[in-house]
Amino acid sequence: MTTASICTIGDEILIGQIVDTNSSYISRELGAAGIRVNTMLSIGDDHDRIVQALRNELEHNDIVVTTGGLGPTKDDITKAALSELSGSKGYVEHPGQMEMVFRILHSRGLEVLDTNRQQAMVPDTCEVIVNRLGTAPIMVFRFDASRFGHPATLYSLPGVPHEALGAVADVVADIKSHYKLESITHSTIMVYGMAESALAKRIEAWEDALPSDMHLAYLPNQLTGVRLRLSVYGGDGKENAARMEERFAELKELLGDMVYSDGDDTLQGAIGRLLRGSGRTLSAAESCTGGEIAHLITTVPGASEYFLGSVTSYAPEVKIKVLGVPADTIEGCGIVSSRVAAAMAEGVRRLTGSTYAVATTGWADAYGDEREPAGTVWVGVAGPAGTKTARFNYKNDRKRNIERFSASALNELRKMIESDLKV
Amino acid sequence: MTTASICTIGDEILIGQIVDTNSSYISRELGAAGIRVNTMLSIGDDHDRIVQALRNELEHNDIVVTTGGLGPTKDDITKAALSELSGSKGYVEHPGQMEMVFRILHSRGLEVLDTNRQQAMVPDTCEVIVNRLGTAPIMVFRFDASRFGHPATLYSLPGVPHEALGAVADVVADIKSHYKLESITHSTIMVYGMAESALAKRIEAWEDALPSDMHLAYLPNQLTGVRLRLSVYGGDGKENAARMEERFAELKELLGDMVYSDGDDTLQGAIGRLLRGSGRTLSAAESCTGGEIAHLITTVPGASEYFLGSVTSYAPEVKIKVLGVPADTIEGCGIVSSRVAAAMAEGVRRLTGSTYAVATTGWADAYGDEREPAGTVWVGVAGPAGTKTARFNYKNDRKRNIERFSASALNELRKMIESDLKV
Repeated sequence: MTTASICTIGDEILIGQIVDTNSSYISRELGAAGIRVNTMLSIGDDHDRIVQALRNELEHNDIVVTTGGLGPTKDDITKAALSELSGSKGYVEHPGQMEMVFRILHSRGLEVLDTNRQQAMVPDTCEVIVNRLGTAPIMVFRFDASRFGHPATLYSLPGVPHEALGAVADVVADIKSHYKLESITHSTIMVYGMAESALAKRIEAWEDALPSDMHLAYLPNQLTGVRLRLSVYGGDGKENAARMEERFAELKELLGDMVYSDGDDTLQGAIGRLLRGSGRTLSAAESCTGGEIAHLITTVPGASEYFLGSVTSYAPEVKIKVLGVPADTIEGCGIVSSRVAAAMAEGVRRLTGSTYAVATTGWADAYGDEREPAGTVWVGVAGPAGTKTARFNYKNDRKRNIERFSASALNELRKMIESDLKV
Repeated sequence: MTTASICTIGDEILIGQIVDTNSSYISRELGAAGIRVNTMLSIGDDHDRIVQALRNELEHNDIVVTTGGLGPTKDDITKAALSELSGSKGYVEHPGQMEMVFRILHSRGLEVLDTNRQQAMVPDTCEVIVNRLGTAPIMVFRFDASRFGHPATLYSLPGVPHEALGAVADVVADIKSHYKLESITHSTIMVYGMAESALAKRIEAWEDALPSDMHLAYLPNQLTGVRLRLSVYGGDGKENAARMEERFAELKELLGDMVYSDGDDTLQGAIGRLLRGSGRTLSAAESCTGGEIAHLITTVPGASEYFLGSVTSYAPEVKIKVLGVPADTIEGCGIVSSRVAAAMAEGVRRLTGSTYAVATTGWADAYGDEREPAGTVWVGVAGPAGTKTARFNYKNDRKRNIERFSASALNELRKMIESDLKV
């Protein structure tokens, strides 16, 4: 099997100032393409150390992917290290990347400085994949077997996360055109509303009956629920996909409306698919989630077709004045209550004239009140068939509670729209 | 300087299923104690690979800290690898950890199984620091100079994050009692409003004049701007901190109100610091940013003290009906315009009665209209001294544009509040 090592370069990860999330993404993408990641490595901005570590990784792997150290400033020294490692005799200008440098800086109204031009200069030992998202080129160094005992390729990617992640598809395509990879077939469904361990118990018999070549992985995520992924290594990809689909059809029977999507998806993506082209619209009223639900809804391209808007009513007066929640409901039932959640959903639905509305009121921090403990959220969803509320309690910190509250609210909304569409 | 390598063991990180956050924390703690972390490494559950990789790290570092692979199940093989690496002749029971195994399982109402007892069995070549948070012991292997050419110590920690992090203080104390450590001093300021390369050019003379033992790093981020970090290795920590503060004071003169914070911070955190305890309040009106600004503001603990709420007015009717933006302003100036941004900010300020308001209207997607191109945002900020607007244009995808729009808006707001406080 083709193997890879992923190396991040830069002091900021080594000293613990930022957490490396690039490697995780790159690893998943390489894995999906049939490449086994053997090592992840972080090293600092030290020339000799970079050269030595990359040499070692190239000795032990077919492919090495580096991120970082390609910026225009003096602490970025990856390029010089790669120049030495590859025995380059000098730098040459890459016209495609130079064009991109000019285009990007001009579009930002910036002057092109000498340091920017140097971004498009690369060692004469590499090929370039033009980076369309930034000024630093993606460099490809190919080593024949005489160098490390086997053919090896090094890909150097920028460290800025969206540039690194944006480059991965190009890197994978390049690897595919140079290496004979085994097939890996994956199939995924999304499940929301059950913890990983409870889900595992519920589907135990189904899992035990899977054929031995089918591997099941649980990938839990606060915002999207549990992703269940089946994988088959080798064999006929189409046939494997069909076999996996059969198994997942059985699973959907078992799990009912907890399954919200067939592929990699999000709750807000599923809601978008349900609403787009239907003429139905959506609004939101948020208290404890503070804009996160609206933010998630509007990350879906085309959301403006169905999302009218939202009110974040952090202060009680905004709930009363803007959303029309009766003051005595807040007084009598508590600010975190079923009645307030319902009134908020109905209020923003009335205010915006939307078909559906979703609302949250809860305690995201480490405190609650005499009625509801910390970590409690009441969700309200309002639609043509009426209003529903649901209560959830989570024991996380503020940030994670906000995420789980938002996901729970989107899931209630998703279930209401789905059930309306079935009628 | 005493050097360290941090190694995580386990397939789940390598295949990208989880992101390694332990290493980042451990690195910060080691760094604060005066240990330079040279390498972070992730390797899979493979016996030979673990032995080979750890041997390599011990050859190149004074200290190796491993996490993971100590659980009771079959895929946990770190202990066997460490046994081989250290030339152990067998396992011995550690009474202190055995007591802990019994205590923890009993407190959970669980029976102590054979696999649990084996947790307290350790290679006869190690010392044990009792893990009070879990059943797996913290193992310490000390190697004299005859083995790797220098004295070296390996600490094996559990992978479960709260157990790993809980063990770090004990590990640092042990290192301090065995090594003479130098100081490492870092200092950071946050700059918003200039691209990394332009900033580097602006401060070039200042950077060139830094003493040779002071290292500068640029850490750009879409949401927080550029973080500038000075580091000094060795010497007197207090004195170095004072020397760095002097340099940063010069830099602040140079950069003016682009510097928004002294330490690791965010724009919304800086705004929180300005508003908290001031009696002043805040609201937001968002169009293209769709709730992201409210979300960012409310990620700051204690935001409820000053943040009253926000309106996401995605549809024009919501701008008109809820925020009171005059329909003929939208008609006459365009939906993405200075006048609409100002009217939105003023509208939500009126609606909520807040001291300050921030508003956005823009084209986050790949299209604009005849007045403003794709990637344009108009930001409005309203306060006691009046209303200001500013225009920005970015050429990113939808998600990045939303982030940059939000950060630009928060920065305009931050500047307005700061300038009010100076009067």
